[in-house]
Amino acid sequence: MNRPHAPAAAPADRLLVRYRIETHAALIEARANALALEQSVEMPAEAITDTAIRATVPGRVERIAPLPSEPGGPGAFEVDISLAAATIGGDPGQLLNMLFGNCSLQTDVRLIDARLPASLLAALPGPAFGIDGLRAACGAGKRPLSCTALKPQGMAPAALAELAGRFARAGIDVIKDDHGIAQQTVAPFEARVPAVQRAIDEANRATGGRTIYAPNLAGGPGRLTAQLRVARDTGVGALLACPMVLGVPVFAELLRAQAGVPLIAHPALAGTAIAPPLLLGRLFRAFGADATIFPNHGGRFGYSRTSCEAIAAAAREPLGDLRPAMPVPAGGMRVDRVDEMLALFGLDTMLLIGGNLLEAGDDLEARAAAFATRVREAGDGGRIAS
Amino acid sequence: MNRPHAPAAAPADRLLVRYRIETHAALIEARANALALEQSVEMPAEAITDTAIRATVPGRVERIAPLPSEPGGPGAFEVDISLAAATIGGDPGQLLNMLFGNCSLQTDVRLIDARLPASLLAALPGPAFGIDGLRAACGAGKRPLSCTALKPQGMAPAALAELAGRFARAGIDVIKDDHGIAQQTVAPFEARVPAVQRAIDEANRATGGRTIYAPNLAGGPGRLTAQLRVARDTGVGALLACPMVLGVPVFAELLRAQAGVPLIAHPALAGTAIAPPLLLGRLFRAFGADATIFPNHGGRFGYSRTSCEAIAAAAREPLGDLRPAMPVPAGGMRVDRVDEMLALFGLDTMLLIGGNLLEAGDDLEARAAAFATRVREAGDGGRIAS
Repeated sequence: MNRPHAPAAAPADRLLVRYRIETHAALIEARANALALEQSVEMPAEAITDTAIRATVPGRVERIAPLPSEPGGPGAFEVDISLAAATIGGDPGQLLNMLFGNCSLQTDVRLIDARLPASLLAALPGPAFGIDGLRAACGAGKRPLSCTALKPQGMAPAALAELAGRFARAGIDVIKDDHGIAQQTVAPFEARVPAVQRAIDEANRATGGRTIYAPNLAGGPGRLTAQLRVARDTGVGALLACPMVLGVPVFAELLRAQAGVPLIAHPALAGTAIAPPLLLGRLFRAFGADATIFPNHGGRFGYSRTSCEAIAAAAREPLGDLRPAMPVPAGGMRVDRVDEMLALFGLDTMLLIGGNLLEAGDDLEARAAAFATRVREAGDGGRIAS
Repeated sequence: MNRPHAPAAAPADRLLVRYRIETHAALIEARANALALEQSVEMPAEAITDTAIRATVPGRVERIAPLPSEPGGPGAFEVDISLAAATIGGDPGQLLNMLFGNCSLQTDVRLIDARLPASLLAALPGPAFGIDGLRAACGAGKRPLSCTALKPQGMAPAALAELAGRFARAGIDVIKDDHGIAQQTVAPFEARVPAVQRAIDEANRATGGRTIYAPNLAGGPGRLTAQLRVARDTGVGALLACPMVLGVPVFAELLRAQAGVPLIAHPALAGTAIAPPLLLGRLFRAFGADATIFPNHGGRFGYSRTSCEAIAAAAREPLGDLRPAMPVPAGGMRVDRVDEMLALFGLDTMLLIGGNLLEAGDDLEARAAAFATRVREAGDGGRIAS
């Protein structure tokens, strides 16, 4: 991640937000000022008649610095803008709105980073369980965790349960629904969740293991509330949700408060215009994610290795009083990359491998067991630096 | 909008989705197939053991056609992919997830269009009031509507009320909160909404007018429910909300069901990777928006005139049994553009002008009245073709 290099210290009551703007050098100052107004008062500053408002509420350009630009391109600039914390009111949705609401519609600007003042961090929920809580849910010590996904969508509850049982017998720590499994007729939440949990319980009894299930929450508040009830009654060990699909206010307010188990965030619909370390790392964590899934480099997505390291850092680094969240590299990962991934991400990591286990066909259980064992032993055996 | 040119008719149980992919000609077939899997089963097709699932659930590439590409660029292709309607389950969030969830994280693909089968359209709520209902709320006949915004954020309820009173006396049809006015300490919903509504009621009594107020809903389901109660008790005439900030499932389930008055959708956080006619026009309407705000061409945003016309068309054209939604061009519009905008968008339009009225300073009421009158007379006088 492009980290802020300690620009002029932001006052305690303001956010310091970094954007990347593409434009010509002759235009950047006007463009930066326009962005500062767009993301705050949304009107010409000179038309604000209240002098107290004009002094504090509009966004303020704090710094403009040229960036390396593409040959033949117009030019690119790093622009730091401060925003009044009072305009957020502690609401995660309003935070995203202030950071990137209107300017998300403009093609020349990306959101790179945001430093949140202590007052705002204190108003955001953060993880209820964090890295240690997720480990505790799996009965794991200070070691990495293994995770896989039930798929494809379209499977009936009995088939999902059968697959979950095989993964659990193999010793996978966390079995999540594919995020494409929602409230579909073939396997509604209230049917599939108890079926899958039973299969996992049975496997755990047989193996003495502590595999947990993280079903995917989907729908509006009414449906989510019903699903949360089923999840509680069933005794699932974790829950999966897509904050950008459900809405971050729902994630932070409803799910964070009522889940009762660790929440795993999925990046669907997160887009490319907000830097992933900020959105998937820092913000999802601040909104209450105990673990955050992101596409690792070298898979089906174009994230760089540097960006992936920055996501993991943002999920775990000190951030107000908020617990650290577990980074979950994923997206086309393979069992033969486990050692390399653990070397990169360290012990405080959950590795998610889906399709590569399913591809093993009849050898699925063996490959899943190899995955789970390798991950477990990485922590026990101290093969990697933490 | 790049409209589908009647490709091979999609079966009734599938969505037909159009993407734009940037890649080299030698790679496009593999890339299109990978996208079809990414947006459905999210695993290699050959690893799906259930033959019934393999036959129907994975996305299917229906058509690939080259597009004009930029000189020196890799190449661009229009790719039509069909998705199984059964994977949606009638949930707006899951619809966005299937259309663009994972691939939103990839930089080479944009979502251009989507045809929804009748079964899915029937499961989506659509506008409760539509264009005629919004007009009725303002006591207007078949004419365009005028709309303005209370801003800047940071104003206290008394100041917001005073401003609203001036706009109402000028005869503006709809006065909305700026979408940056959320649940802030300086003007919480329960304080500002009754104050503003009282000022508008008073102005209406004085003028005999029918100005309505659309306060901005913000927060998670708990806060929204409380705000909806205040809105009902206060008797506001409409409500404003940002579907992408609140989450489209919340918009479609909670707000659509409980608003009781027309819902105006704001495009904040909608990004640039989904074609605006699809997202702001067709989908927001299908999710329950009675009116949809979008940045008009020639303002502060880069939307083309063609794209704006396509947004308006998508909001109004036949779509299952759903009512048409009111297009609301905005984003740096000026009173001197009213005639031109009405000529472009016709009678079934609400024009939103904010900053340009506030800039008038002491002449605010006069300029607002000129705006309101011009819009009202355009319908009455039949100066424009509908």
